[in-house]
Amino acid sequence: MKKYDVIIIGGGGGGYYTAEKIKEFENSKSVLLIEKESIGGVCLNIGCIPTKSFISTAELIENFKNSERFGIKSSFTPDYLKIFERKERIVKILQRGLYKRLLSKNIDIIFSKAHISSESVVETENGEKFEFKNLVIATGSKDSQIPSLLFDGETILNSRDVLSLKELPSSVVIVGGGVIGCEFATYLSIFGCKVTMVEIFDSPLSTLKNSFIKDNAKKILQKNGVKFIGGKSVLSFDSTNKRVILSDKEEIFCDKVIVSVGRKPFCDLELEKLGVLKDKNGFIITDKTKRTNNERVYATGDVTEGPMLAHKSYYDGLICAKNICGIKTERIDYTFIPYSIFTLPPISHSGKSEDELKSEDIEYKVLKASYAENGRAASYEARAGEVRVFLSNDDKILGADIIGKDSDILIHQLLPFIQNGIDFKLLKESIFIHPTMSEIISELKLY
Amino acid sequence: MKKYDVIIIGGGGGGYYTAEKIKEFENSKSVLLIEKESIGGVCLNIGCIPTKSFISTAELIENFKNSERFGIKSSFTPDYLKIFERKERIVKILQRGLYKRLLSKNIDIIFSKAHISSESVVETENGEKFEFKNLVIATGSKDSQIPSLLFDGETILNSRDVLSLKELPSSVVIVGGGVIGCEFATYLSIFGCKVTMVEIFDSPLSTLKNSFIKDNAKKILQKNGVKFIGGKSVLSFDSTNKRVILSDKEEIFCDKVIVSVGRKPFCDLELEKLGVLKDKNGFIITDKTKRTNNERVYATGDVTEGPMLAHKSYYDGLICAKNICGIKTERIDYTFIPYSIFTLPPISHSGKSEDELKSEDIEYKVLKASYAENGRAASYEARAGEVRVFLSNDDKILGADIIGKDSDILIHQLLPFIQNGIDFKLLKESIFIHPTMSEIISELKLY
Repeated sequence: MKKYDVIIIGGGGGGYYTAEKIKEFENSKSVLLIEKESIGGVCLNIGCIPTKSFISTAELIENFKNSERFGIKSSFTPDYLKIFERKERIVKILQRGLYKRLLSKNIDIIFSKAHISSESVVETENGEKFEFKNLVIATGSKDSQIPSLLFDGETILNSRDVLSLKELPSSVVIVGGGVIGCEFATYLSIFGCKVTMVEIFDSPLSTLKNSFIKDNAKKILQKNGVKFIGGKSVLSFDSTNKRVILSDKEEIFCDKVIVSVGRKPFCDLELEKLGVLKDKNGFIITDKTKRTNNERVYATGDVTEGPMLAHKSYYDGLICAKNICGIKTERIDYTFIPYSIFTLPPISHSGKSEDELKSEDIEYKVLKASYAENGRAASYEARAGEVRVFLSNDDKILGADIIGKDSDILIHQLLPFIQNGIDFKLLKESIFIHPTMSEIISELKLY
Repeated sequence: MKKYDVIIIGGGGGGYYTAEKIKEFENSKSVLLIEKESIGGVCLNIGCIPTKSFISTAELIENFKNSERFGIKSSFTPDYLKIFERKERIVKILQRGLYKRLLSKNIDIIFSKAHISSESVVETENGEKFEFKNLVIATGSKDSQIPSLLFDGETILNSRDVLSLKELPSSVVIVGGGVIGCEFATYLSIFGCKVTMVEIFDSPLSTLKNSFIKDNAKKILQKNGVKFIGGKSVLSFDSTNKRVILSDKEEIFCDKVIVSVGRKPFCDLELEKLGVLKDKNGFIITDKTKRTNNERVYATGDVTEGPMLAHKSYYDGLICAKNICGIKTERIDYTFIPYSIFTLPPISHSGKSEDELKSEDIEYKVLKASYAENGRAASYEARAGEVRVFLSNDDKILGADIIGKDSDILIHQLLPFIQNGIDFKLLKESIFIHPTMSEIISELKLY
C-alpha cells in the first residue's frame, strides 16, 4: 500500500491550493490529490471562470452599444454558440495549465471518487488503497434545491446546467437574487434573453448586511434590462404552459427556470470512520487552523463554514498547509474576506458595511469619492460610480464599498491596508499616477 | 492695491493644486490664481486628458477588431470629427468642474498674463496690481523645437496642433519616440492614419533607463501598426513634395510632421525683479521645499526640475502648500514618481528599473508573474502581459514594471508599498479577490 504524507480529497480551490502550498512550505512531503471529476472544482469549471468569460463578452456588447458616444458607428451580432465555445476554450486552457502546474510540483493526482477505508486509509474506485499521515477534506459544495422546483437539467436548471446551455433561452425566470443569480441575470439579459428575477426579499443579495450594495445592485440589474420582482416567491412551474406561478398567483411565461437559491456544503465521505463531525448545516467543523476534531484530519473550502468564495478556499488552504507543515498560524476573522459581484459595472466590498458598523455601535467616519470627477473615467464614459470608505478614529480602514467600472481591481488598493491595519494616510497620501481610475481613491473626502 | 497671502502664476496642475492644498491646510489664507489661458494647464487642455480621450476610443476600436474572438460579429466606422468632438466635450466638462471647485474653495481666479511689477507686486494685463506675501511660479513648459523643423501649425505640428486637428491625416511622420510621441502614434495608427516614427536611438522612450520597457514599447507600437525607424534623424521637410528627408537621405511621404522631441520649462516672467534664479536648462532652481533662492517665492511643476508629469506637479504643489502653511516637509527623491505610458496595452513603472539597479550595484531579487495564467485576463483575451518586481534583501520593493491591460491601475497596488517602504509580504500575503486581474500580483514568484 502506497503511503502519503498528505492525501487531499477534492481538486477544487480548497484542495489543489492546499496541495501547492504544502509543496511550497515543505517540498519533501508527498501529496496525493484525488478528484472525482475535473481539476479546478466548481470555480474553474462551473463557476467563477465560465461566468467571467460570459460577463467579459457582455461587457464588450455594452461597450459596443455605447460606441456612438465614442464617435464610432457600429453594428454587431452576438453568436451565442461561439460565445459558449469561447467559454469552453478558456476553461480548458486554464484547466490544462493548472494540471501541468500541479504535476510540475510533484503532486500526484488520481481522478476517482474517494472512499474512507479506515481511519488512515483512503480507497479509490478501482480498489487501490493509500495510507495517509494527514488527510484534507475539500469536497466543496453543491446547488441548494427547492422541493417544488427540482432540477431536471432541461427546464429547471442549476448553475451547472445554465453554463452548459448551447442555445440562448428566449426567456428565463431566475429564482433567487444571490450573487450567482445576479451574474447569470446580467449576461443573459445583455445577450438578449428576457430575464425576470424573483426574490423573496425587496432587493437582490438579500443575505448581505449592506443596503448600499443591495440598492445599487437592483438598479444595475434593471439598467441591464432585468425585470426584478421582489417580495414574492415562486410556488411551482407549469411545464405544459411554460409558466412559473408566484406566491400571489401571478404567472410568468418562460423558456427556462434557473433556481439559484444558494449552495450547501457537499461531503458524501464516510466521515464516521474518521470520527469527523459536521454541524447542523452540514459543514465539517474545524478550528481556526482548519483542523477537524480528528487531529490528523483537516478540512478546507466550501465544505467548511464561511463565505463560499474561491479566495476564501485558497485562504483556508494556506492556513491548513502551514499548520500541516508545522508553521503555526490561525485564520483571521472571515469578515475580512473581500468580494466582487460581477454585474456590469461590478460591485466590490471588503470589511464591515455601514449597516454593520451602525448595528455594532462602532464609531466611524465616512469618506466618499465619485467617478464623475475622474478624468480617466470620463475618457471611458464611466462617470457612474462611487467609492465609500469607513475609517476608525485612528485612521484604520474598517470597510469599503466600490461600485463602478473596474471596482474589482480598484478595491485591491485598499485590501492590504484593511487586512493588516495599516494607516490609511499612507495610502491616501501616496503619489498616484495621473490620469488613472486609481486616483478616485486619492480623491476620497470626509462626508 | 488688493493684498493676497499667496499669488500663484499659472493655473495648470502645479498651480491650481497648490492653491487647493493651501486652502485645505489653512483656509484663512487668501489665494489668487492667475492663468493666461485655460484652467487645468497643458495636462487637462492639450495633454493627458485629450490623449486619454482619444486612446479610450482607440481601445474600443481594438475591441471591435477582436470581437470575433469573443463570439461577436461586428462592423464599425470611426468618425474622426465625432471622436474629436467627444474629446472637446470631455475637456470642457472637466474644465468647468475644476473651475467651479476652485471657486467653491474661495480661490480667486483672474484670466490674464501676469507681470512681475516689483519684488512683492504682480500686475495683470489691464494694469491691476496685487501685492503678495508669497508667490508661487507655476508657468509650466512648452514643446521643444528643432531649428530645421519649425512649427507652422499647418504641416509641422506641435502637440497642441495635433490635438486640434479636425481631420485625421492620412499619414504622419512623428519625429521623436518619447511618451507623447508614443501616445500620438498609438491612437492615430488605430484610427487609420499611416504612422512612421523616426527616432535617433534604436527604440522609443530612449531617455528611460529601462531596456525592458523600451523593448516592449517598440513591439507594442509595431503591433498597433506603427512603422518604427530607429537610429536615424529627420533632416528636413520638403513641403513641395510632402516628404521628410532622413539623415541617410531616405525620403518618407507624409501629410503632416509631428515634432515630439520633448518639452522644456517655460517662464517669461521678469524674474530678475525677484532675484529668482534659473539653471542652465531654464528650470527655476528650488530647494526640497520647492522654495526658490528668494525666500518668499516658490516654484512648482514643469518649470522646476524633475519628470514633466501632472502628478509630479501635484506632488510639488503639496510640498509647496505645506511649507507655505508652516508644515515643514521635504519632497522625496523624484525616482519614486511612478508613471504610465498609455500605449495599448499601457506600460507602467515605479521606482528603480533593473538597468538602474545593475548600474548602481544595488543587490536585488526579481519576481515575475505573467498575465497568461490569470483567469480574469483570459476572460478578456488579455493574456499578453507581465509584472516584474525588484525586491531588496529585506523584502522592500525597489522597483516594478507592469506591461499589459489595466497596468495603469494594477501598479497602484504596489505604489504605497514602494513609497513608504512597507514590507512587500504584507501585500503579497493579503487575500486577493478571485477571479481578478489583481491576482497577478499575488502570483509573483522568484525568478
